[in-house]
Amino acid sequence: MENYQKIIEDIYLDLKNIDDVGKVADYIPELGEVSADKFGINMTTIDNKSFDVGNANEKFSIQSISKILTLTLAYKLEGEKLWERLDVEPSGNPFNSLSQLEKDKGKPRNPFINAGAIVVCDVLIGHLKNPKKDFLDFCREISNNSCLNYSEKVAESEKACGYRNVALCNFIKSFGNIKNDVDEVLDFYFYTCSLQMSCKELSQIFLFLANDDFITNKGNSIITMSQAKRINAILLTCGFYDESGEFAFRVGLPGKSGVGGGIIAIHPDEYCITVWSPKLNKRGNSYKGMLFLEKFTTKTASSIF
Amino acid sequence: MENYQKIIEDIYLDLKNIDDVGKVADYIPELGEVSADKFGINMTTIDNKSFDVGNANEKFSIQSISKILTLTLAYKLEGEKLWERLDVEPSGNPFNSLSQLEKDKGKPRNPFINAGAIVVCDVLIGHLKNPKKDFLDFCREISNNSCLNYSEKVAESEKACGYRNVALCNFIKSFGNIKNDVDEVLDFYFYTCSLQMSCKELSQIFLFLANDDFITNKGNSIITMSQAKRINAILLTCGFYDESGEFAFRVGLPGKSGVGGGIIAIHPDEYCITVWSPKLNKRGNSYKGMLFLEKFTTKTASSIF
Amino acid sequence: MENYQKIIEDIYLDLKNIDDVGKVADYIPELGEVSADKFGINMTTIDNKSFDVGNANEKFSIQSISKILTLTLAYKLEGEKLWERLDVEPSGNPFNSLSQLEKDKGKPRNPFINAGAIVVCDVLIGHLKNPKKDFLDFCREISNNSCLNYSEKVAESEKACGYRNVALCNFIKSFGNIKNDVDEVLDFYFYTCSLQMSCKELSQIFLFLANDDFITNKGNSIITMSQAKRINAILLTCGFYDESGEFAFRVGLPGKSGVGGGIIAIHPDEYCITVWSPKLNKRGNSYKGMLFLEKFTTKTASSIF
Amino acid sequence: MENYQKIIEDIYLDLKNIDDVGKVADYIPELGEVSADKFGINMTTIDNKSFDVGNANEKFSIQSISKILTLTLAYKLEGEKLWERLDVEPSGNPFNSLSQLEKDKGKPRNPFINAGAIVVCDVLIGHLKNPKKDFLDFCREISNNSCLNYSEKVAESEKACGYRNVALCNFIKSFGNIKNDVDEVLDFYFYTCSLQMSCKELSQIFLFLANDDFITNKGNSIITMSQAKRINAILLTCGFYDESGEFAFRVGLPGKSGVGGGIIAIHPDEYCITVWSPKLNKRGNSYKGMLFLEKFTTKTASSIF
Repeated sequence: MENYQKIIEDIYLDLKNIDDVGKVADYIPELGEVSADKFGINMTTIDNKSFDVGNANEKFSIQSISKILTLTLAYKLEGEKLWERLDVEPSGNPFNSLSQLEKDKGKPRNPFINAGAIVVCDVLIGHLKNPKKDFLDFCREISNNSCLNYSEKVAESEKACGYRNVALCNFIKSFGNIKNDVDEVLDFYFYTCSLQMSCKELSQIFLFLANDDFITNKGNSIITMSQAKRINAILLTCGFYDESGEFAFRVGLPGKSGVGGGIIAIHPDEYCITVWSPKLNKRGNSYKGMLFLEKFTTKTASSIF
Repeated sequence: MENYQKIIEDIYLDLKNIDDVGKVADYIPELGEVSADKFGINMTTIDNKSFDVGNANEKFSIQSISKILTLTLAYKLEGEKLWERLDVEPSGNPFNSLSQLEKDKGKPRNPFINAGAIVVCDVLIGHLKNPKKDFLDFCREISNNSCLNYSEKVAESEKACGYRNVALCNFIKSFGNIKNDVDEVLDFYFYTCSLQMSCKELSQIFLFLANDDFITNKGNSIITMSQAKRINAILLTCGFYDESGEFAFRVGLPGKSGVGGGIIAIHPDEYCITVWSPKLNKRGNSYKGMLFLEKFTTKTASSIF
Repeated sequence: MENYQKIIEDIYLDLKNIDDVGKVADYIPELGEVSADKFGINMTTIDNKSFDVGNANEKFSIQSISKILTLTLAYKLEGEKLWERLDVEPSGNPFNSLSQLEKDKGKPRNPFINAGAIVVCDVLIGHLKNPKKDFLDFCREISNNSCLNYSEKVAESEKACGYRNVALCNFIKSFGNIKNDVDEVLDFYFYTCSLQMSCKELSQIFLFLANDDFITNKGNSIITMSQAKRINAILLTCGFYDESGEFAFRVGLPGKSGVGGGIIAIHPDEYCITVWSPKLNKRGNSYKGMLFLEKFTTKTASSIF
Repeated sequence: MENYQKIIEDIYLDLKNIDDVGKVADYIPELGEVSADKFGINMTTIDNKSFDVGNANEKFSIQSISKILTLTLAYKLEGEKLWERLDVEPSGNPFNSLSQLEKDKGKPRNPFINAGAIVVCDVLIGHLKNPKKDFLDFCREISNNSCLNYSEKVAESEKACGYRNVALCNFIKSFGNIKNDVDEVLDFYFYTCSLQMSCKELSQIFLFLANDDFITNKGNSIITMSQAKRINAILLTCGFYDESGEFAFRVGLPGKSGVGGGIIAIHPDEYCITVWSPKLNKRGNSYKGMLFLEKFTTKTASSIF
């Protein structure tokens, strides 16, 4: 166990001062304000041992990592019927592409590209009384963490310049695959993306994907074991947009990135690990985060393959 | 001259009762209410001789034919700088495609697909104090016809279900090629599409593209001869979406269709001709309208080639 | 008439020494050997008055301009049935694109992109006993010019490195739209492209597209007037690959370019004009050639629009 | 252990007589001759316990499953440099698509689509003296099975009608990413696809991907553990063309299909399993094979997630 602590510290020191060719996302003004040299890691095992280094306890904008949480709740509420409205195939395209959606007639390739996550939000609105509140409650319960919250500032900032997402949502609506009002769906979507969490909080909230026997403090199970495995499968094939194959190849774990610079990865039956470093590579994934995880699974020989 | 009258009457009778495989556009509810068997033709020569048959004096929704009018005003106001924001190439794609726009980074292929006409409306908003009023005044002057008007009902109907156009406009905005507020641009765009004219009014309003020496009643010229020729060239290569080549091949004149079932065609130095028949073929162009014009240019041997 | 001579001389002098940003095609080694500063023009009226300047009587490789000649013969032999195997729509894509062909299931967009011309060659092989000889005889008759010939050197050079065309032909064959042996079709195709002509010879061979009453010295008509008009229409919409709209917009005549640096343009009922300048712009069309023709139709006010 | 035997027998009986909506591949005449109701399964554990049912010992054409074997040898010989010439990303497109290759300028998305496997063959030709013989020797050694062989009949049959693959290879060559003669590369490629194996032989030949300590009878290791894991990762993200996500989602194991109706899947550290049923679903993967494996990993709770 000390071993894990030492390994993450060693890699942290190796990478801390490397030349980072990435760039902080600035398409949402609020994200551009984060200090580029933040670097934090947390690893939490399924028996809740936790290992930290760097800025592991500082909150940041989890952005697309929230797509796992909205998917989980929608899958729980809707069951397998969910897949009538979105697919589980890697897209082979950037995260906000419209071309493919045109060919596929408004059915998004998977829940981890923007188009898919927007459809998931539309599904949730059909089930929840107060979507924003209910979803936040769900996140708080599965993480046993009542301080989770949205950043209104980030949500509003994104709403003010999210033309591409407005385009996506209207485009899908034109195919009939959005049932609710476009503005309501997007408002909810932008809020889910604005969740703020630290590395440690992220590792903890995703333990339900690593631990087959997971139950919340209130004694509830989240989703079935089979559903959790399936979410892991989609993460592996689709979690990193058009770099999903690369992540599977180099890191070998199911995972998901966000443009805030966070990456979470899951080793089923063992642990969750979260890395945060805001500079992104060309495909929108944390440059140092990917490097860290590659070194980590190599040193610990812990890929799923 | 009587000749022209006889020719259009003969073709009219030939086609009136053929089996029309087309379908009335119903994606805007208001358009779906038009009687499917309307059929009217007007031909007007540059010396203002006019020949009518059928429902030639009944107003209908000109829809995309208005794209020529917005282009003309924008070209007049902006000059060749206009082409920095849109291209003059045939798209080889349906009228509301987003894929190509993604590849072309938000620069529409030409002013006669929706994306291009929306950019043209954005340009006009930058020049006009009261875009809707000023544009209508412009149309009234060049047609010397003070009864031209928008159909608010059609405009509002389209606004309520125009998700694809909302998607297009936001998508272009995400590339920076829309300068004004998206809602304002679309509101203006939907109004321009809702103009109501009869075949006769349409033939008359486009005489400025056939007549090199055209001046309005107030003594104003509209655009330069070179600009008029260039608009005709774009009409020939791009006026019928992904059926532009077919129209050039079969009819041999610059022209433009609208989903209201109208088609106008221009024979430079000679005449304008307008056909109206609401049933559209698969590519969104009036089925009978194209047939009529093919027979007409064949009988009169009057293509530009 | 002296007027025409003076106009082409003036423009020739204007352009002779401009900074030509184009590049000589070098993907076929033989083409790369041509001197980059060749510049010739010939204009021939339908009553056979001819005006020359510069290297107007020097032969060069006509390359894709030959696509008009193969189309003409195939159209003559096959009639309208020809269009079951290829379309008449602008492609909106580069000349050797395979993507569109995949979407269109092996039916080329038009006869002036490589895919279409290869299908045309396949059609010809179905009609001709000795395709290479018979096609050459046809060209010699319509131009009344017995010195026309292929360049075996160019044909063989292209065959040795024409991987993209081999790919195209096999791809179309996989959809069933090539009936003959792939090697035979390509061998014929490469030979047709290797025809050598001077500007003057080119202007003369295409008079049948400008002159409704054209007959050969042997008293044969080539194709019907309607067919000639239709070929002109396809030239206007498709003659310059993804720059067809631009050529129609700036020059306003049906025309066709070749990567050897030649461009021919046709003014129906008046004349043919040919320009040769080997440096090509990014889309594969002669840079100076397009400039020359733009200035020429502007000065003579002779576009078809 | 008897357990495994019972489980595969039970599922076999469940599925044997279901209505199979798939179709036997007939694009290669030889494949069309196989009896559609063949159905065999073999599972072999890393300690070489083997469980059979149905036609498990009958040889069939492994087709694209051979792409793992060519990749393995090329990866062994070339190391990580291999990835300069091909990528490891899911394609999101059918197995023989050319469109994506055009966008990616001749660099195939991954080694398990045809384009990628053809590049891999080209790499092998650069390393091997007698490519066909040397590759066969390699396959025989890793399977400790001297009766493995090509089917010349299948290879020649495919060569005679493999226009799409000829197109792909020439297309890649046009981008410079094929170094050897196109005919030589394709001849080798068609032979590798024609390998004949039974389910049992397939399970055995892929044990090296399941067993970290694998060595051949001659005492050689095949590739490093890290390389084996990486091949498994690519199999998971790319092994089933545009159905890769679906297979990961439903089955949860790295695997690969061939149009002969075979599917192999690997559970790292545990076993290989092979199913053979010739009728393919719309995406070219064995319909019953996918169903079998879904039921198998569900019953044995043995996905990697």
